[in-house]
Amino acid sequence: MDEPRERYRVNVPLRWSDMDAYGHVNNVQFLRLLEDARVIGFEEWFGQDRSVLAEGILVARHEIEYLAPLLFRVPPIVVEMWATKIGGAGFDLAYEVRDGHAGDDTVYARAETTLVLYDFATSTPRRMAPDLRAMLEERSGEPVPFRWRRR
Amino acid sequence: MDEPRERYRVNVPLRWSDMDAYGHVNNVQFLRLLEDARVIGFEEWFGQDRSVLAEGILVARHEIEYLAPLLFRVPPIVVEMWATKIGGAGFDLAYEVRDGHAGDDTVYARAETTLVLYDFATSTPRRMAPDLRAMLEERSGEPVPFRWRRR
Amino acid sequence: MDEPRERYRVNVPLRWSDMDAYGHVNNVQFLRLLEDARVIGFEEWFGQDRSVLAEGILVARHEIEYLAPLLFRVPPIVVEMWATKIGGAGFDLAYEVRDGHAGDDTVYARAETTLVLYDFATSTPRRMAPDLRAMLEERSGEPVPFRWRRR
Amino acid sequence: MDEPRERYRVNVPLRWSDMDAYGHVNNVQFLRLLEDARVIGFEEWFGQDRSVLAEGILVARHEIEYLAPLLFRVPPIVVEMWATKIGGAGFDLAYEVRDGHAGDDTVYARAETTLVLYDFATSTPRRMAPDLRAMLEERSGEPVPFRWRRR
Repeated sequence: MDEPRERYRVNVPLRWSDMDAYGHVNNVQFLRLLEDARVIGFEEWFGQDRSVLAEGILVARHEIEYLAPLLFRVPPIVVEMWATKIGGAGFDLAYEVRDGHAGDDTVYARAETTLVLYDFATSTPRRMAPDLRAMLEERSGEPVPFRWRRR
Repeated sequence: MDEPRERYRVNVPLRWSDMDAYGHVNNVQFLRLLEDARVIGFEEWFGQDRSVLAEGILVARHEIEYLAPLLFRVPPIVVEMWATKIGGAGFDLAYEVRDGHAGDDTVYARAETTLVLYDFATSTPRRMAPDLRAMLEERSGEPVPFRWRRR
Repeated sequence: MDEPRERYRVNVPLRWSDMDAYGHVNNVQFLRLLEDARVIGFEEWFGQDRSVLAEGILVARHEIEYLAPLLFRVPPIVVEMWATKIGGAGFDLAYEVRDGHAGDDTVYARAETTLVLYDFATSTPRRMAPDLRAMLEERSGEPVPFRWRRR
Repeated sequence: MDEPRERYRVNVPLRWSDMDAYGHVNNVQFLRLLEDARVIGFEEWFGQDRSVLAEGILVARHEIEYLAPLLFRVPPIVVEMWATKIGGAGFDLAYEVRDGHAGDDTVYARAETTLVLYDFATSTPRRMAPDLRAMLEERSGEPVPFRWRRR
């Protein structure tokens, strides 16, 4: 019987400039934080075999819901990250942006990104290699419980 | 019989810095361009009655699909913008990011933002006033034809 | 006798996100606005002969003084731009960030950038061609009257 | 006899998006990194007595020279930071942006910021309190050896 896997967590530092004139981390900057989470996380996930990524990955889609206002502070926030769908030529990546302070279980945002494997040399999508699929299956989890997506 | 309404179009200038190390306008910056489109567009939509906005609007959700790579150029791109759902305390705003050059009908991205009316003074959602509803109904249109959203 | 030359003026649009948590255009974003001014201005100055630029220009230095707080508004600000020093392998570019509204002669910032001509192919500085020097001499003007530079 | 003081060092994380279309950390983003260094550093310098800062500090001036191209990497760069001039109503802060990897003594940039103490309540400059002056004198050092500043 499978143990529930622990989610992968990335520490992502904020910048004071992530705040906008309302004094909160700006909604667009949350996507920037998720980009940072991917860059840091993928280096750890695939670092030993960068070829899976180096040939190219395109962002095809983002979906994000904002759940609580986030203020700048020096300690990083925590982004939990897992694969929610693994297809023949891409995958969906889910995220929860969490506080990371002990005892604080605030979820600031939930999001999902559709990534497409791409061959920059030939400008065409490319098939997912078995080793990348295996790595992503190790990192897969539940669909994102979006509340606002229109039914 | 209703004539089909013409969509509202905003000219949104790019910045050279919107491009990332891949030499394309970065996917996160598209959300920044949509923020610009809202700021410019809402000033025109509601400028005569800023009270509808001044009390506060929060971004609750974004969804965006990327359809074609966009390179920096000095002439602005065009963002078409319309309301797709008008609720009791918020509305959905749809966008198409288009080229704007004569004869070029490239759509670079389609997106949708859920906006919630908010009363910053009391930190609570607020009801949509009839005049705002009327203005938005003037600006309403078809749902966004997303291709990637998981069914 | 020379007539005083009129300064070259570039309209540079602001973004709402240029404001920081203090509600003013952030001091770093002023440098971003100057980058925009260079990109727009150089296309006009050298557009007919992009070769002078295409081979590469590096920013070697910035100096900037902030004179008045700037708030976001939809109409662009105006950046006046002129060459202050023309050397064998680069030039200094001066700027004044002005309001641009009729009757408002506020100067928000004064700045100067040292640009070095660079040959990306060989990774070495390159000599200024006579036609670039001639164009810059057409655009040259007074040194920037910095107030804060330490003597 | 005084021992030479060791310079204060701040670890400042890069973001992948700090790179521009040339594939280097953009010159404007260096100023953003220095803002981060101030925010992180001042929390440590003055954290025990935030009142010295909370009342307000304005950036009056920046000067920066770029010495070597910087590429994104996950480990933070190091910003060395010290006071170079302490006046009655403000101070100058010097920086060196260094690599931080063991054995790599590359200096990517040198810079200096003039900061003015400000009373936001009354919108006027304010005098430096003796305890702030004492803290800054602890942190003071040599003038920045700028190479490009015009003589």
